[in-house]
Amino acid sequence: MKLDKNTNILIVGLGLLGGSYARALTKKGFSVKCITRSQSSVDYALSEGIISFGTTVPEPELIGAADLAVFALYPHVFVEWMEKYGKYLKKGAVITDVTGVKKCIVEKIQDMLPEGVEFIAAHPMAGREVYGVQNSDDSIFKEANYIVTPTEKNTPEAVRLCKDLGHTLGFAHVAELTPEAHDDMIAYLSQLTHCIAVALMTSSDVPKLKEYTGDSFRDLTRIARINEDMWSELFLLNKKSLISMIDEFSGELYRMRTYIADDNVEKLKEMMRISTERRAAFDKTKMIEE
Amino acid sequence: MKLDKNTNILIVGLGLLGGSYARALTKKGFSVKCITRSQSSVDYALSEGIISFGTTVPEPELIGAADLAVFALYPHVFVEWMEKYGKYLKKGAVITDVTGVKKCIVEKIQDMLPEGVEFIAAHPMAGREVYGVQNSDDSIFKEANYIVTPTEKNTPEAVRLCKDLGHTLGFAHVAELTPEAHDDMIAYLSQLTHCIAVALMTSSDVPKLKEYTGDSFRDLTRIARINEDMWSELFLLNKKSLISMIDEFSGELYRMRTYIADDNVEKLKEMMRISTERRAAFDKTKMIEE
Repeated sequence: MKLDKNTNILIVGLGLLGGSYARALTKKGFSVKCITRSQSSVDYALSEGIISFGTTVPEPELIGAADLAVFALYPHVFVEWMEKYGKYLKKGAVITDVTGVKKCIVEKIQDMLPEGVEFIAAHPMAGREVYGVQNSDDSIFKEANYIVTPTEKNTPEAVRLCKDLGHTLGFAHVAELTPEAHDDMIAYLSQLTHCIAVALMTSSDVPKLKEYTGDSFRDLTRIARINEDMWSELFLLNKKSLISMIDEFSGELYRMRTYIADDNVEKLKEMMRISTERRAAFDKTKMIEE
Repeated sequence: MKLDKNTNILIVGLGLLGGSYARALTKKGFSVKCITRSQSSVDYALSEGIISFGTTVPEPELIGAADLAVFALYPHVFVEWMEKYGKYLKKGAVITDVTGVKKCIVEKIQDMLPEGVEFIAAHPMAGREVYGVQNSDDSIFKEANYIVTPTEKNTPEAVRLCKDLGHTLGFAHVAELTPEAHDDMIAYLSQLTHCIAVALMTSSDVPKLKEYTGDSFRDLTRIARINEDMWSELFLLNKKSLISMIDEFSGELYRMRTYIADDNVEKLKEMMRISTERRAAFDKTKMIEE
């Protein structure tokens, strides 16, 4: 299957990400249908013209007509949905997702697929600190990464389709990782940073914070406004990798504390030099085009 | 003394901050002279028209003519400078600084002042990840905080002068703290965040980092490009407060790790709710005008 204007696209879950997908795809001329929980989300999306059809009822016919279905749901809701309605998906349909953890979800979903249906997982590395289709905005994909995490059960055609979707949505870079490598990476690059932001915010309650703060604190705590239902679920689904990254980071912070306590200026500077080099390399790295 | 166009302003140290002060003050019609280490900085500042006179030689006459002297130097360089040339400051002169720690520097400098000279410390909470007068930019003050840290040795006139300077430079908010409260605050809001960014960067060396990362990691490590000479000095000068903040934060992160390890969803969510509330309040707080 190739992604073209005849592809019947169904989005399940019209929140911030699902809504942003709908926006991007409709702009590119695709016809997008959707199933979501609340009628007000359907109404909003129709009034904005970002879907061609929407309903709160998971109708077998609608599900059965989809060539490509994108699930933009919480992990456990995705699994529950597939248990109930997955059987209506047609042979040859490809389904994908936006879930922030991969190993557990990929295994679970692939094990429950009806015959002839393929699940190819993906993680759009984009978001905002607000929720709902009302805040959807496809410009969040512009400088962001899209990671596809195929397994040996996936066909090259489905991998290609999923990467096409990433490019079509407007992501700056489309990468490929195994589900395991993805989860380790995400533990470091996203989950650990969210833990740090939360712990930094709960460390002290400074009245009149805003009068004294500089940019660094603002930057580090932007993500401390956090959707507790989603993130607690993601953390627990990836707890082994996440705990190992928290320990790694805590060890480095403790090393720094030791150098400060011992007035070990040379070692302190050495850590800062490594940090500066790595961060500078990161700024310079060019996006790698596929 | 009041800050007006006849005030003879001398900036000692024409780096990123000294240069940005010179830029802001010259734009407002003040005549700014400067003493700095490198002739190329003087040449650049003259060619940009942001100083009226500059030299690399600490001439007694130039120092003696200053009504207001701003020291934009590393803490230990500031102390050394005062030991050598402080004696040339005239009676009635007021001096201020930009140092990121206060208690130790305020005590040291106030103890070595010639009679009739007053030191009133200040901390402009603004900066960039690049250095030198060539990168100076007074727009960095626009949404930033300026903290004055007077002691019982300061006169109300000098406190007022120093606050006037903060407003004249264009800071959004001018606040007042004791040197001790400042150092505790800065350990939390600025030094700890820099330690975290460095430790986060040294925790793992991910090849192709840029292909996988999202905004949160970018935001948290922006300040991981760090001037190791300046920050190691600032950390050690404030080590008691800083170590106590590192311990506080590490304890919170460990608490979170425990909740994750124990699948304690309720406690995990509770931490996230507190973090979200505090961060949201921070976004909403209006700047308090004096």
